[in-house]
Amino acid sequence: MFVHHVFFWLNEPDNLDAYNQLEEGLNQLSTIDTIQMVHIGKPAGTNRDVIDSSYTFSLLTVFENETDHDIYQHHPIHENFIQTCGQLWNKVLVYDSE
Amino acid sequence: MFVHHVFFWLNEPDNLDAYNQLEEGLNQLSTIDTIQMVHIGKPAGTNRDVIDSSYTFSLLTVFENETDHDIYQHHPIHENFIQTCGQLWNKVLVYDSE
Repeated sequence: MFVHHVFFWLNEPDNLDAYNQLEEGLNQLSTIDTIQMVHIGKPAGTNRDVIDSSYTFSLLTVFENETDHDIYQHHPIHENFIQTCGQLWNKVLVYDSE
Repeated sequence: MFVHHVFFWLNEPDNLDAYNQLEEGLNQLSTIDTIQMVHIGKPAGTNRDVIDSSYTFSLLTVFENETDHDIYQHHPIHENFIQTCGQLWNKVLVYDSE
């Protein structure tokens, strides 16, 4: 199992157009067919010192293996996402786990 | 769906006893019965600017809802994990997404 978890911090988190555009982009990404499990998330209401809830959106994708993740990374839908949404965020953080 | 993703940085990542103790603790945690899906991970081999691969272990748990997550947090197995393993790490970071 290959777990790919991405966190996005919007430039303007209160800009509803930007918020909706990123959410729509994430919805498109979630259709890439090598994904086994996907979750588009927003910070939960939990609140402890060790919790980072400063991000705007999370995207959890699970793949069977790294090869399937690599197909996702180079998929035209992913490349289109970077082109159309890449200017919306000022920080993105990725954790890949196997 | 409630996604709870935790990253652990061991005090001594090259100390095999500490490494094995934390891994065994995570294996115990993964038996808590409100968990719907669990993955104990280590950094994958991917390497880009946006990827943080500095942690030692990740623990991804997925719950049906926040109530099931809260049961997990207060479960005796979780409390035992904190007591027996809490001294092993110098940093822990949590992302909760809904």
